[in-house]
Amino acid sequence: MIQRPRGTRDFSPDEMYRRRQVESIMRQACKTFGYGEIGTPTFESLKLFTEKSGEGIVKQLYNFKDKGGRDIALRPELTAPVMRFYVNELQSFPKPLKLFYFGNCFRYEEPQKGRFREFYQFGVECIGGKGEAEVIALAVKILEKVGLKNFELRVGHLGILRNILGNVPPSVMTIIDKKNFDELKEKINEEKYKKLMKAVYLKEEIFEDEKSKGKELDDLKKVFEKLKLFGINKYNIDLSIARGLDYYSGVVFEVDCPDLGSESQICGGGAYNLSELFGGEKINSAGFAIGFDRVMLGLENEKRVFGKDKLGVYVIPVGEEAKNKCFEVVSILRENNISSDVDMMGRSIAKNMKYANSINAKKVIILGEDELKEDRVTIRDMETGKQEKIPVKNLIKYLETGKIK
Amino acid sequence: MIQRPRGTRDFSPDEMYRRRQVESIMRQACKTFGYGEIGTPTFESLKLFTEKSGEGIVKQLYNFKDKGGRDIALRPELTAPVMRFYVNELQSFPKPLKLFYFGNCFRYEEPQKGRFREFYQFGVECIGGKGEAEVIALAVKILEKVGLKNFELRVGHLGILRNILGNVPPSVMTIIDKKNFDELKEKINEEKYKKLMKAVYLKEEIFEDEKSKGKELDDLKKVFEKLKLFGINKYNIDLSIARGLDYYSGVVFEVDCPDLGSESQICGGGAYNLSELFGGEKINSAGFAIGFDRVMLGLENEKRVFGKDKLGVYVIPVGEEAKNKCFEVVSILRENNISSDVDMMGRSIAKNMKYANSINAKKVIILGEDELKEDRVTIRDMETGKQEKIPVKNLIKYLETGKIK
Repeated sequence: MIQRPRGTRDFSPDEMYRRRQVESIMRQACKTFGYGEIGTPTFESLKLFTEKSGEGIVKQLYNFKDKGGRDIALRPELTAPVMRFYVNELQSFPKPLKLFYFGNCFRYEEPQKGRFREFYQFGVECIGGKGEAEVIALAVKILEKVGLKNFELRVGHLGILRNILGNVPPSVMTIIDKKNFDELKEKINEEKYKKLMKAVYLKEEIFEDEKSKGKELDDLKKVFEKLKLFGINKYNIDLSIARGLDYYSGVVFEVDCPDLGSESQICGGGAYNLSELFGGEKINSAGFAIGFDRVMLGLENEKRVFGKDKLGVYVIPVGEEAKNKCFEVVSILRENNISSDVDMMGRSIAKNMKYANSINAKKVIILGEDELKEDRVTIRDMETGKQEKIPVKNLIKYLETGKIK
Repeated sequence: MIQRPRGTRDFSPDEMYRRRQVESIMRQACKTFGYGEIGTPTFESLKLFTEKSGEGIVKQLYNFKDKGGRDIALRPELTAPVMRFYVNELQSFPKPLKLFYFGNCFRYEEPQKGRFREFYQFGVECIGGKGEAEVIALAVKILEKVGLKNFELRVGHLGILRNILGNVPPSVMTIIDKKNFDELKEKINEEKYKKLMKAVYLKEEIFEDEKSKGKELDDLKKVFEKLKLFGINKYNIDLSIARGLDYYSGVVFEVDCPDLGSESQICGGGAYNLSELFGGEKINSAGFAIGFDRVMLGLENEKRVFGKDKLGVYVIPVGEEAKNKCFEVVSILRENNISSDVDMMGRSIAKNMKYANSINAKKVIILGEDELKEDRVTIRDMETGKQEKIPVKNLIKYLETGKIK
């Protein structure tokens, strides 16, 4: 038996049905906000990701040389590909250019709950304009619309953090991002540490703090004002959001689903500058990525009800002669967009009823010699057990309205 | 500037809008036929594909060693992954098990029109039962429903071909599949060649041909009878369909879109046995894969009309004071699932109108000092140019019904 690769998943019809529902709600929410969907390749030049995130990222990548000797990597995230696409082909589009995507990403890391080697991200990029508040609002609306109940939004500002810290190596930012404050104490001087700790715990009061005042705090204040206009009133200030990467420039945010334990972050984003790095003109952008699989886990934890993908009608022939008529009947149903199926195994009625049950058929049609003569079908509701004989010509009307004639 | 890898594509919002429409119609058609969607990983163990197709396939694959030293390949097709999933986890499901998928595949080959290194396949597998006729009918229905006009279905039978040829190496099957009959002449003896040529050109008359009679021809006959019951009357018999691979066992079929020139095949499939090869119990299956990108090319050639993904309303503030109200208005619209956007660039009215035009907004709302005082908005239809003043509280009703009060 050949196993699927470690850290990857297969999705059964039930799982795919749930995932497609959630994906569709997310897509609809983005369209409501005026975003258009784009697609990019699954692999990119390795350089795209090392330019953005540094050589350190390579150890987490699925990278390889293709048969032409090119250094290739499966994408670990989608912001860099989207910005590459933007710089190559979309720079002349009217601004703001509002784009969203849903795609698979890959990281070579130890699999655990909520962490897979192939995982799915749903995200947006708003290129041009002051999009920070809107993308935060959109992220929250998406999570609300898919039905997630317990999640927390935290908003910070990298400028405030950098004003306090001055120039620090990226590793320090990573330590802050992980909230390892004990470790941090050994890496920066005491004065900075105290200032940082004060800022981290200030929360709302920071807007009253004389020493913090400046452009960055005004920025943050405006974002909160806009969030309220967008109907978002539940948020926390968190100045310890560092997001590690240099191209984030201002307001940043994260969303957690606390029920998920150690892998609780389900969304992250903020304002960034990335197009220059890829050879484009400088343009302010804002975006986020939602960890689609973690949202699915969160919804599962909260026992979100999805319903089942039920078959409309299962058609059972009784006797050899009725078979052809059954194929005709199922064709009529399908032409009318009623999901339906017909016995292809030559089973007995009892076994066919069992099969109909196991695939969640809503109704069963039984068609034997008697029905064939009368050009009727016997139709049974699998939930109520109610059974009626219907002329074939009235079948669609009956299924749509419940009326026999 | 970093380029995207050779043979891959980026999809703009307009292209994605068209692709998602076609995908959605295909998905709906499969559900109508009682198929459920599944998903599998983008990469698999290399062995999965060499077991199925032989070592020869490696030169066409994106294969590499992962950081754990495992031999991995990006999937070149989806039948092997689906059957691997079936053998590992789905064998106990009731039969027939009707599955469909939509996914990206990868082949390292020279890019040309209709041939990409990352391409998309939409396909089905019917595991258990006599599914051949149904999958052929479904393939045709899918192509009809997406609106493709000019395509041709050819149906053959590998058993008939093998009875004529006896044991021949796979390379001979490939030659037949490519219809290189001149080259074939040199590879097999004259008697076989004559028989084969006769069979290839026999078409419908083969059913009257005494020498061809047997189980295989009966099989084929039954499939045509069923196809008629499913409403499929347009098909050609083509006994030269060889499909190269050993696991195909009986009825096989292909669909061409002649307008596409040298890469005209848009669908291929048939009956097969594959689960044994992957360690499962023997079970008859049937399936097909549609080349999604080629179908898109075919639709483009035929100038299929898709419409545009238009924004419902674009909101323009006039003056500083109206800005906050504009954010509120756009939030109300979005809460009511009306796709809408608001100026984020601080542009003039004229520039905003130009932007609204460029993003295909159906309506524009103008909100200035006067409107603010009256708690109204001015709303303009971008197609007719008609302009009206509406109380904010009646806005949703107005957009839904066209009535002002």
